Amino acid sequence: MKSLLSILAAVLLSACAAPALRGTGDLGLVIERASGSVAVVDNSARAILGRVEGLGDLSHASAVYSRDGRYAYVFGRDGGLTKVDLLERKIAKRILQAGNSIGGAISQDGRLVAAQNYQPGGVKVFDAETLELLADIPAEFGNGKQFSKVVGLADVPGNKFAYALFDAGEIWVADLSTPRAPKLTKFRGIGSQPYDGLVTPDGRHYIAGLFGEDGLALIDLWKPEQGARKILANYGKGAEKLPVFKMPHLRGWAVAGGRAYLPAIGKHEVLVVDTATWQEVGRIPVKGQPVFVMARPDGRQIWVNFAFPDYSQVQVIDTLEQKVVQTLSPGKAVLHMEFTPRGENVWISARDDNRVVVFDTASFAKLAELPAQNPSGIFFTSRAARIGF
Amino acid sequence: MKSLLSILAAVLLSACAAPALRGTGDLGLVIERASGSVAVVDNSARAILGRVEGLGDLSHASAVYSRDGRYAYVFGRDGGLTKVDLLERKIAKRILQAGNSIGGAISQDGRLVAAQNYQPGGVKVFDAETLELLADIPAEFGNGKQFSKVVGLADVPGNKFAYALFDAGEIWVADLSTPRAPKLTKFRGIGSQPYDGLVTPDGRHYIAGLFGEDGLALIDLWKPEQGARKILANYGKGAEKLPVFKMPHLRGWAVAGGRAYLPAIGKHEVLVVDTATWQEVGRIPVKGQPVFVMARPDGRQIWVNFAFPDYSQVQVIDTLEQKVVQTLSPGKAVLHMEFTPRGENVWISARDDNRVVVFDTASFAKLAELPAQNPSGIFFTSRAARIGF
Repeated sequence: MKSLLSILAAVLLSACAAPALRGTGDLGLVIERASGSVAVVDNSARAILGRVEGLGDLSHASAVYSRDGRYAYVFGRDGGLTKVDLLERKIAKRILQAGNSIGGAISQDGRLVAAQNYQPGGVKVFDAETLELLADIPAEFGNGKQFSKVVGLADVPGNKFAYALFDAGEIWVADLSTPRAPKLTKFRGIGSQPYDGLVTPDGRHYIAGLFGEDGLALIDLWKPEQGARKILANYGKGAEKLPVFKMPHLRGWAVAGGRAYLPAIGKHEVLVVDTATWQEVGRIPVKGQPVFVMARPDGRQIWVNFAFPDYSQVQVIDTLEQKVVQTLSPGKAVLHMEFTPRGENVWISARDDNRVVVFDTASFAKLAELPAQNPSGIFFTSRAARIGF
Repeated sequence: MKSLLSILAAVLLSACAAPALRGTGDLGLVIERASGSVAVVDNSARAILGRVEGLGDLSHASAVYSRDGRYAYVFGRDGGLTKVDLLERKIAKRILQAGNSIGGAISQDGRLVAAQNYQPGGVKVFDAETLELLADIPAEFGNGKQFSKVVGLADVPGNKFAYALFDAGEIWVADLSTPRAPKLTKFRGIGSQPYDGLVTPDGRHYIAGLFGEDGLALIDLWKPEQGARKILANYGKGAEKLPVFKMPHLRGWAVAGGRAYLPAIGKHEVLVVDTATWQEVGRIPVKGQPVFVMARPDGRQIWVNFAFPDYSQVQVIDTLEQKVVQTLSPGKAVLHMEFTPRGENVWISARDDNRVVVFDTASFAKLAELPAQNPSGIFFTSRAARIGF
C-alpha cells in the first residue's frame, strides 16, 4: 500500500514538475556555432540558465522572437528554422526549409516568420505558431528562369518585409497583409550586387549596401513612388581597393540623434551621416576595420568591433564628443554585441576564448564572464518589441 | 482506501495547479479606477485574462514594469504602491508609502522603484524585489522647513531619476547608483510652478511644463553644466487666458522624426517643435483641447485625445502630411491610449462606456471591444524596455 501511494505521489508530482513560472522580458540566447546549440540567458541575473542542442549548422545564425517573448526562431545556415521554447528550454518545432539560408525576420503582428534563402533563392513565409508554410516567394528575375540569392530581409510596418536580390540588383517589398497572397513591389536597377540591408529604427528607410559598386541604395518606404536612389556615392571599397578582411554588417548600423554611424569598408573609420540629407558629415578614426557599429539604446555611445587582426578589441565612441573614449579587450575574436533593453549593460561574445563578457556601459567595469562554446550572435527578447530587427 | 487516494490526488494536483507557463512580452494591464482593480490583458489575443482587486484609490494611477515583465508596480492616488504578479494574477506585495501620491518610475537597471509624493512632499525609493524603503528624499526648499509637491518623475540613464518641485520651481536629478546614498543635482529658479515633466525617448532632455507662467523649462542632461533654459516662451495659457478644461499630459508628448508634437494649452491645436532648436515650426488644427498627443512607435502617426466636451473622439495626424487624416469615436470619455510595441494596434479606454477598444492603426478598423470598469490608464509590459516611461 505504501509503495502504491509513493508511486502515485511520484507520478502526480512529476506531472507538475514544470519549469518555474517567470517573466520572459529579460531572457535571451547566445548562438554556440561550433556545437549547434544555444545558451538560454537571463540578463537580470547575468547568468546562463541552460542549453538547447540539435539546431544544426549555426554559422552566421540569427534569431527573432515571438510577441510574448517565450519563443525564439533561430535561422541556421543549413536552411534549418528552429522554434526554441525559452521557458521549457527545448525545441518546440524544427523544419529544414531550404538548402542554404542566411537569416530571417518576424512580421509586425508577430504572426509570420520569414526566411531569406540563397538556395533555392527566395523568401518563404511561415505561420509563427505552427511553422506551416504560408507563402513561397521565389526571387525570380531576368527571363524568370533565374533565381537570386536573397539578403537584407527586414520587417517593416504594415506586416511587410523588405529585402534585396543579390544577383538581380533589385529590392522587393512583400506585403503579407493576406499571408497566402503576398503583394510584391519591385524596385529594379537599384545597383550592383546588394549584399546586405537594413531598415532604420522608425521603419521608414530601407538601405542596401552594394558589393559590385560604391554607394548605397536607399528607398523611402513612406514615399515608394519616388523609387530607389543612390546615396553616399563614395561609400565602398573605393579607388584604392584596400584589402577588405570582412564586409561589415549593415544590420549593425547605428542611428542616433539624427545621425547614422556606418562602418567604413576597408578603412579604419566610422562614417557619420546626416539622416535628413543622407550626406556624410564626418569620419571618426578607430582601431581597425569596423564590422558592427551599434548604438547604445539612448544614442550617447556607439560600440564598434573589428575584423581580423583587430578582432579582440572593442571601441566606444561618445556621440557628443564624436571620438573614441574607451578601448576594451573582451577576449579573442569578438563577433557580436547586444545591449540590455535600456542600455545599462552590453553583452559581448569572444568566440575563441569561449566566453561572453558583460560590461557596465557607464563605468566600463566588467560585470560578468560567462562560459559559452564558440559564441557568436547574442539576441535578447526585447527585440520582439522593436521594428526592423 | 479509495477516498484516501482521492484526497491525496486532489492535494497533489492542487499543489501543482499553477498558472500555465507563458511569455510576458504581450501582457499589460488596464486601470479600473472606480473599483480599485486592474484588468490583466493579452495584446496578442486582444483579451482580458482576469482581474486583480484591492489596489485602493486608482484615480490618476499609473504603472511601470519589472525587467522580466512579470510584475507591475501600480502607483495609486492614496500613496499605495502595489506590486502585481501578472502571471499569478494576484497582489505580490502592497504598501502605503505616502498620504497623497501621483505616480512613479523604475530605474534603468530595474532594481529600484521610485514614487513621487505630494504629501509628504518628496521622492521615496524602494527595492523592486521586496519594496523595502532604500532612500527617502524630502523635497525641501527655501529655509529647509518647507516641502514641495513632486511631479514629472522620470527615469534617466545612469540609474538616475529626474523630477520637478511644484512649489519650489526647481528640477532635481537624483543619482541612485548607490541606492542608500542618493546624490542630488538641483536646478533652481527654473520657472514658476512646474506641473508635469517628461524625458525625451533618448533620455537626453528633461522638460517641465509650467503652470505659473508661459514657456517650458529644458535641461540637457548630457550637458548639465549649462543649467536649465526656457523654451517656447509662448507655450501656455497665453494672453487670452482661455478656459482650460484639463491641463494636458506632458508625458504623452510625441517625438518623431526630429520633431516633438505638443498639446497646446486651451487651444484646439497640436504644436510642432524642431527638437534640434526647440523652436516652434508649425501648428496643426484639431477638434478640441488636446490631452494626450502620442506617437505611433514608427512616428508616422500622432494620436490625440481631448478634454471635455470633445472627450469622446480621437484624431490621427499623419506626420508626413502634417494634418489630421482620421477621426474616430471609440466611446464616451476617452482617457488614455496605448500602442502595441511595434504599433500595429492601439488600445483606447472609454471610461463612461466601460470599455476598451482596439483599433488597427493602418486600416482604422475596430478589432475588439473589451468590457472594463471605468477604465483609465493602459500599460503594456513593453514599457519595461523603454527609457523615460
